[in-house]
Amino acid sequence: MKAASNILTDSITPSDPLVFGFWKVPQESCQEVCYNAIRAGYRRLDCACDYGNEKQVGQGIQQAIQDGICTREDLFVTSKLWNTYHHPNHVPLACQRSLEDLQLEYLDEYLIHFPISMEFVDFDKKYPPEWTNLDGKMVLVPNDMCATWKAMEALVETGKCKTIGVCNFSTQLLRQIIATANIRPSTLQVELHPHNAQTKLVRFAHEQGMNVTAFSTFGSASYVELDMATADDSLMTHSVIASIAKAHSKTPAQVLIRWALQRNTFPLTKTSNTARMAENRNVLDFVLTGDEMNAIDNLNKNHRYNDPGVFCEAGMGTFCPIYE
Amino acid sequence: MKAASNILTDSITPSDPLVFGFWKVPQESCQEVCYNAIRAGYRRLDCACDYGNEKQVGQGIQQAIQDGICTREDLFVTSKLWNTYHHPNHVPLACQRSLEDLQLEYLDEYLIHFPISMEFVDFDKKYPPEWTNLDGKMVLVPNDMCATWKAMEALVETGKCKTIGVCNFSTQLLRQIIATANIRPSTLQVELHPHNAQTKLVRFAHEQGMNVTAFSTFGSASYVELDMATADDSLMTHSVIASIAKAHSKTPAQVLIRWALQRNTFPLTKTSNTARMAENRNVLDFVLTGDEMNAIDNLNKNHRYNDPGVFCEAGMGTFCPIYE
Repeated sequence: MKAASNILTDSITPSDPLVFGFWKVPQESCQEVCYNAIRAGYRRLDCACDYGNEKQVGQGIQQAIQDGICTREDLFVTSKLWNTYHHPNHVPLACQRSLEDLQLEYLDEYLIHFPISMEFVDFDKKYPPEWTNLDGKMVLVPNDMCATWKAMEALVETGKCKTIGVCNFSTQLLRQIIATANIRPSTLQVELHPHNAQTKLVRFAHEQGMNVTAFSTFGSASYVELDMATADDSLMTHSVIASIAKAHSKTPAQVLIRWALQRNTFPLTKTSNTARMAENRNVLDFVLTGDEMNAIDNLNKNHRYNDPGVFCEAGMGTFCPIYE
Repeated sequence: MKAASNILTDSITPSDPLVFGFWKVPQESCQEVCYNAIRAGYRRLDCACDYGNEKQVGQGIQQAIQDGICTREDLFVTSKLWNTYHHPNHVPLACQRSLEDLQLEYLDEYLIHFPISMEFVDFDKKYPPEWTNLDGKMVLVPNDMCATWKAMEALVETGKCKTIGVCNFSTQLLRQIIATANIRPSTLQVELHPHNAQTKLVRFAHEQGMNVTAFSTFGSASYVELDMATADDSLMTHSVIASIAKAHSKTPAQVLIRWALQRNTFPLTKTSNTARMAENRNVLDFVLTGDEMNAIDNLNKNHRYNDPGVFCEAGMGTFCPIYE
């Protein structure tokens, strides 16, 4: 594993280590946002059934391909298996639905979205099913995640997915999947930012040969509007980040993205603003020093914003701790 | 599940919710300590292959039975499967070795000691193997924990163990075991004290029908001598604990044990001092108020003292995060 202070992210696809995410992108603007992101240079597109906008992402992809901005092969498209589809019989159906919505023949990456399993909801009745069944209840069900993984492997064998991985898994369950897998998970996607650095988890995944995708690269930014964080949590206005940004004539956002890159993680960001898309990509012409990396590392407080163990109980009355 | 402020620990074996632990009890004094603990009233005895003193515990048990202090049936004896024996072929051998050392026909409880698996070390070459192989190296190996669990279930089926459970498992792997088990884990044993309250994990285990045994009931106390904590970490001298103790004319130790009982956990303690054994058992004649429970709950700082992810790297150069 490379030390965090390494300059080159040579374990990362050199052509495009930056990931554009579609969580919370409204359907109305999503095709355009996708098109603009590809035009801005993004090739890694992070989608999910649960985001409710894969059709619109698919339209944006098609538009970009038709306009000659990229080919299908240039793109690295991720989708995610939702919690209601963990039964091995449902895995290929869920993948097929995402493929159809995205207008793709294959996914570059298909990830298990969460390490918890919920009652199946019929595709025709509610899609995406989100966190609740047809009665409005969030219902957890026991599930053999190794059997789910076998069904994921079958998607690789049939060519539906190039690679498979997981999100929000911790070391204990990762070890179990890795020990029993025929095809090892290629990616771990988790919440990573200076307030939730998860250095050991990142190191573990790297040592296991996995890529690590960092979601919520800007920390609390995505959660203030959801009442899951306050402005006080902001990394964008944090004095340490601000002073480092100033020293490099960069923005706080660029510093946060750069920090993620120098940890050899794939930073995932989202914006509907094309100027910001360019800003978020303009991060390859400067290098954070070891001291700067350390100063940012020192901001860690193991603070997670995206925790179903909190919001599922608050919102749906279902107790589902994941990270304990 | 009962709220933490419940007075009666009626989900706990009423006759003896208190557990006596043998971690770090020296072989030389261990028979006597075991005998004295039983004489002091302890019936739950927490042993492990790894503690290196099961023979002496066995001698203490025999002495107590021969002296008519208790019968075998009065006792609830726990042992633990060490990390080197997770292969299904090794599970019954490890259990048998503990049974022989303890001079018992059956265990009341057999627990998987840690959710990580290490290279097998021959019983005849090094016992207990502790953390390193014959070359002095700590070597992790991939292992299907569900297969280990099946081998644990077979011990129940053959009468070698009355119940089976796990230590140091987190919710993600617990869900996997529970989802695939024929015999569900009956107990979760984890580090629990006011500095590491793990309230969600305890609640999860209780909701899954598991008993929860709390090790390191006194917090840092066991770790200062191992240089894994400083005197500053002490709960025994903490002003909140001390003032509550004073209000009840009890000792800080008794308050910490009582806090664990009122959370419906089984507090595990150890002492070689017979007066302290009596002190640690004299906890059923007072009740912490809701406010007192809350004041102690507020001391939580998610501080774990027993973390192989820390001490295995520091001591053996092997990176093995468990709780990330």
